[in-house]
Amino acid sequence: MRSRDDTDHVSVVRLDAAGGTSLSDSVVVEEPLEIRVDGESLVVTMRTPGDDLDLAAGFLLTEGWIESAAEIGTLSYCPDERDPNLRNTVDARLIGRSRPVREPRRAWANSGCGLCGKSTLESIHQSVKPIESAVRISRGIIMGLPETLSERQTNFRETGGIHAAGLFDAEGRCLAVREDIGRHNAVDKVIGALLGRGDLQKAAAMMVSGRLGFEIAQKALMARIPIVASVSAPSSLAIDLAQEFGVTAIGFVRGASMNIYSHSERIVP
Amino acid sequence: MRSRDDTDHVSVVRLDAAGGTSLSDSVVVEEPLEIRVDGESLVVTMRTPGDDLDLAAGFLLTEGWIESAAEIGTLSYCPDERDPNLRNTVDARLIGRSRPVREPRRAWANSGCGLCGKSTLESIHQSVKPIESAVRISRGIIMGLPETLSERQTNFRETGGIHAAGLFDAEGRCLAVREDIGRHNAVDKVIGALLGRGDLQKAAAMMVSGRLGFEIAQKALMARIPIVASVSAPSSLAIDLAQEFGVTAIGFVRGASMNIYSHSERIVP
Repeated sequence: MRSRDDTDHVSVVRLDAAGGTSLSDSVVVEEPLEIRVDGESLVVTMRTPGDDLDLAAGFLLTEGWIESAAEIGTLSYCPDERDPNLRNTVDARLIGRSRPVREPRRAWANSGCGLCGKSTLESIHQSVKPIESAVRISRGIIMGLPETLSERQTNFRETGGIHAAGLFDAEGRCLAVREDIGRHNAVDKVIGALLGRGDLQKAAAMMVSGRLGFEIAQKALMARIPIVASVSAPSSLAIDLAQEFGVTAIGFVRGASMNIYSHSERIVP
Repeated sequence: MRSRDDTDHVSVVRLDAAGGTSLSDSVVVEEPLEIRVDGESLVVTMRTPGDDLDLAAGFLLTEGWIESAAEIGTLSYCPDERDPNLRNTVDARLIGRSRPVREPRRAWANSGCGLCGKSTLESIHQSVKPIESAVRISRGIIMGLPETLSERQTNFRETGGIHAAGLFDAEGRCLAVREDIGRHNAVDKVIGALLGRGDLQKAAAMMVSGRLGFEIAQKALMARIPIVASVSAPSSLAIDLAQEFGVTAIGFVRGASMNIYSHSERIVP
């Protein structure tokens, strides 16, 4: 039985020109987590164990099940009826919930035109307002975010196989960094961490280690984070969402250079 | 309205020490695709348009809805009732389907012990046999796969934001390479391409551009591909699955070196 740490040690054969060597290697742990609302299963996600309650809280916010931390009554691990040692199911009891703000996947097919990126954005418009933050951040601060993120990625250094997401205030101070094998889980964990301690409004920018796809841009929007930056590439639909909903999307933050795909007015050269 | 090509051009502000420059940048296109079986919606996935029928066929195989191409009667785009120009919904009419081989997410919670990686693997055991292939591949061939993959990644060179998966025979000949913004979609597309032309049995090894997580290992298993290699890191659960189900899992294929995490007997030093 594995321990439920976030890294694990495995036996590996390293093969190179000199032949094969048996050694021990650190790998990132991946285990299923089920998130429930009022006892009803919402999703099973493959995640790196740790910060599971933050992950669940962040997921509820960024997928539109809640709009604020005040709507979470309790958030706790469910005792697993078959194995009491397992901590892979989290249940949120919500306060005053009438119906979900938005059921993301189903909503995609329910707008005026057919299933497409445009209709996906239209369906978000039905429940989410654009971000109108007047925050301004200097180019120099954005340039420094990748280094801060990687300095705090302890598990990546050990395993080479884990994503990170960090939240920063307008002065570039790091509010939190979280790691997970799933890029979307890392984003939900770091958002959930600040949501839980009432600091999410301080978050001016999110830095992610992976690509900036639609899902990441959508989660930033739902958490009302005005700036999202990545060392890597954005997708077309992430840019469309960012443009329409007031999110500053930045890609390829490398050395002294960055590409700003939307709402560049927030970045001071 | 965007064209439904796989790359798109957007306006970007490039900011560096010399100031800001407006220019045009290529980005990878991301659009929703709905996959249906006999008219019933299975999933909406965010994918890069192109090879959608291959994506659907691969998905049906790797997620356990079919066991062979012979079970697919027809596979076609559905006309979208609201916008006839859209090609974002694919319907598969299956032949002789009794019930799904396996419903992946739901099955995770249905095994003897509680929800965990071990029970996830147990649930797969209920319908899937280990791979017992006697195929052997030399270290030199595996070493060459990353280069072949990246040579064929035309969209990555243009956008920097797209994953690739390639299938190779036991002599290292490339059978197919496909790209997608989602790593799992690239895997489904390349598997579906070979499934469609009856060549899947020739596939001895799969090379992926991203990490080797559980989902990728599971898809290789379902497609009966004995060797899976990545330039990057594997996860704990991917390794567990590979060990239990006869898959050779290789990570960090870089230069002359590679790490073999399971069934190393298939790689000839």
